Order: sequence, then structure tokens, then C-alpha cells
Amino acid sequence: MGALHEGHGRLIDEARAASASVAVSIFVNPIQFNQSEDFARYPRPLEADLAFCAERGVDVVFVPPLEQMYPQPQATFVEVGGVADHMEGQFRPGHFRGVATVVLKLFQIVQPDRAYFGEKDAQQLAVIRRMVQDLNLTVEIAGVPTVREPDGLALSSRNRHLNAEERAIAPRLYQALRAAQQSIAAGETAAEAVKRAARDVLAAEPRMRVEYLEIAGDAEMQPVESVAAPVCVAAAVWVGRTRLIDNVRCQPPVRPENSAVQS
Amino acid sequence: MGALHEGHGRLIDEARAASASVAVSIFVNPIQFNQSEDFARYPRPLEADLAFCAERGVDVVFVPPLEQMYPQPQATFVEVGGVADHMEGQFRPGHFRGVATVVLKLFQIVQPDRAYFGEKDAQQLAVIRRMVQDLNLTVEIAGVPTVREPDGLALSSRNRHLNAEERAIAPRLYQALRAAQQSIAAGETAAEAVKRAARDVLAAEPRMRVEYLEIAGDAEMQPVESVAAPVCVAAAVWVGRTRLIDNVRCQPPVRPENSAVQS
Repeated sequence: MGALHEGHGRLIDEARAASASVAVSIFVNPIQFNQSEDFARYPRPLEADLAFCAERGVDVVFVPPLEQMYPQPQATFVEVGGVADHMEGQFRPGHFRGVATVVLKLFQIVQPDRAYFGEKDAQQLAVIRRMVQDLNLTVEIAGVPTVREPDGLALSSRNRHLNAEERAIAPRLYQALRAAQQSIAAGETAAEAVKRAARDVLAAEPRMRVEYLEIAGDAEMQPVESVAAPVCVAAAVWVGRTRLIDNVRCQPPVRPENSAVQS
Repeated sequence: MGALHEGHGRLIDEARAASASVAVSIFVNPIQFNQSEDFARYPRPLEADLAFCAERGVDVVFVPPLEQMYPQPQATFVEVGGVADHMEGQFRPGHFRGVATVVLKLFQIVQPDRAYFGEKDAQQLAVIRRMVQDLNLTVEIAGVPTVREPDGLALSSRNRHLNAEERAIAPRLYQALRAAQQSIAAGETAAEAVKRAARDVLAAEPRMRVEYLEIAGDAEMQPVESVAAPVCVAAAVWVGRTRLIDNVRCQPPVRPENSAVQS
């Protein structure tokens, strides 16, 4: 959607290193927004984005006008069930429908061999992987690790909406996720206990409002009650009128064989 | 879906005449059936189908096993709104969702330049055309006229389920649609009056139960109240436990300029 930052830069770099030619699409997609304000408010610094792509060695930048992507009211939508039901899917109804639909459209137009998505949007990545499997799309999906500021805040186009005070408290989101990660690394398996560790960090900052904090299975993005396999701890919070999301992948510690069964 | 007949033969012939290579997919698609009996009951004469394709000069026959098309429970579906809402969409909930989804899957696997669909399933054709537009699919869609028995019955894989008595009354469906067509050709513009002409023909045969009889705009498949442009008169009827559908396209007579406004 443009407003490119080093997180996108990392996607481009990985594509550049692995590919003969690299295309970037920049399109602020109206059908994935549920609040029209957010769509209007979404940053569109096109000149800076084009310069960014040129510096990174991008071959093609695809910037379709709205009326080219939606020449008539969109009647066809791609719905991904299961993986899209919770977390973002719950709090942004219709969001993943809009994402899956526009990503399929872009795949058909650009016809990439491989497409790169950031792990910061872990559920989006899972939705797209599932769509690709279920619809036999020939594109290969590559997930790219989240790029963070030195204080841990995940890079996001929405960060530019934060004022100085909001920016100062925003890293607490990642601190909370790290607390969950450490809890799991220390052997905690009860999802409620892990979430409590993260919530305690968030609760200490009254200006940060939690929308959800969830622990989900890595591929299927279904909430789990106990942590027995790699999971994704994900959260959405509001800071002022800016919504931030982030997630970390957590691996339970390796234990002696069968110890989970014995305990 | 196989059980190939001369209607399919016409699709193949048109593809053969226009193309360097012709592929036929044969797959009885479970997700487009709403009654499991119908799915189990659908004919699968594979050897005869393969011979039919060989005689017609087909280059590739794609007959995927069920577990290749659906290796895991399908979570992703293509939903086409508007054009799929009435007629078949109303009486077979989920049917077009299943059709659109499998057709998109087949398009991704086979990657045809052009795909041929029969006009007998006029609404299905409209759904697929809309899906192709909305999702920027690169395939070109070709509609092929319905092939009929000498007595007017549209060829269908389901006709083989008719016993002799049912087969004898089945052509009445087309006779009813012809009555509607003649009514429109004679200048009738009120949809209710046109439908009455068709319903009168159907009502004379008590062993034929009407599921719907509708007049819809040609491209959008929305019911119309008055016939001012080309329309599709479509019906579904039951004969015994076999469901038959058919449709005719109707053109209102050309009238002196502005006469519609003056009248």
C-alpha cells in the first residue's frame, strides 16, 4: 500500500537477491478498510516511494489508479475461512476479504513467480498462504521477518501518525510480546498465564488500549489454550487514534522425550 | 463434469477450430452440490468420456482425483454477488460459490488462454464472466449455444436419469420458454405477461413441477419487470426426481425510434 519504509525495503532486498526482476505494487486498497476515514487518512507519499524503489533496484513499480483496479463495483470476493476468523478478522470485519481479493487480483495482473510479505502481518501472511494452497495459485509465498526500530517498535506506515508522546509509549507493545515469549521460553504452557505476562506489561501504560492479545497456532491462526508447538503471540493496541499491531513467534523449550505426556 | 454429450462436443469443436491445443477437464465437483445424493448420483462414464475426447481431437484430458483438487478441507471460496443472487443462486444455495471456486482452481492449474462454457447454463456463464472481470483473470470466456434434441430438449448429463415417460414430457420446458420468446417477439414488454405465457404451457403438464421461471437482464441476471433490452428467460423444473434447467435469450422487436417513450 505504499508509504514504504525499511520493512518494505527488506522485502525488496530479499526479492532482489533471489530474482531476475522485481516488481512492487503500490495501491491503497479501499475494500480492505472498514472505516472510510482510515482509507482517506492512509499516507500516499508516491514520489518518495518511487525514489525508494529506484534506490533499491526495483524494475517495475505498479501504481494502478482506483478506477483501473475497480472499474465497476466489485461483486466478486475471495473469502478465506478458518485462518481469517480470529484476531484481525474478528476486529476488522471484511478486512481479510478485501486483502485476499486484491492480492489475488494483483497476482493475476503482475503474475509473479514469488511474492514477499512481511511477518509483521502474520495473520495476513497465513491467509495468503492458505488462499494460494486452496486456489492452486502458482505463486510461491515468502515471509520476511519484521524490521524494528532500535527500541523494538515494528516499522509500520501507521507509525507516522504517532505524536512524540505516543511514539514514546508505542514500544511497550513489543515489550509485552517479548514478555510472553520469555514466559513460553521459561516453560509456561498455559496460554492464559502467558497472556497474563504480556497483559501485565500493557496494563502498566494506561494510554495504551488493548484490542486483542492472542496466542494462535502458527499456520492455522486458531487460538490455543496450551502451548505445545510453535505459536504466534499477536496483539492489536490503540495509541491515541492510531492502531498498532505486532506479533512474535514463540517456540516452546525442547523437553526430554514424552515429558509433556508424563507431566 | 464429464458424462459428455453433443453439447460438450460443440464446446470442444469450437475450441478445436480456434486453438493450437485443447484441454478438457472432467471433475465432478463436490462443493457445488448441495444435496450429497446428487453428487453421488452424478454419472461418471470415464471410459466413454475419454473415447469421446479422443474422437474430437482433444489434446489433454485433465481428470484429477478428488484428493488432488481438495487435499485439505477447502477454506477459501470465491463469492460472486449480484449476478449469482437469483434463480439458480436462490434455489441452490452455495452452488455458484462452489462453481466459481472450482473454475478458478481449474483456470490456475490448466492456464487456458480461452475457456468455453455452454449457454444452457446461462447464469453460470454470467457468473464466470463476472468473476473473470472482477478478479482480472487473463482467460477469455467463450459462450457456446445450447445443443438440443430434435424435440427441443436441451442436452444435459442429467437427461439420462429420465425414464421413458419423463423423457416424453421433458421437452415441454423448452416449449414454455419458446412461448415466452414468441410473446416478447410479438411486442409484449410486461415481464408478468411474458411469464404467464410460459407458465400456461407448463401448467398443462401436472407431472412437471416448476421451481422458478424468471426473466433476467442478459449480463447482470437481475429479474426485470419490463422487457426493454435483450433478456434471458430461464426456468428450472422437476420431472420426477430429475431437475432440468433451460433458458432462451430474447430480443424485443425493433420499434420506430422513441416509440417506447411515446407509448
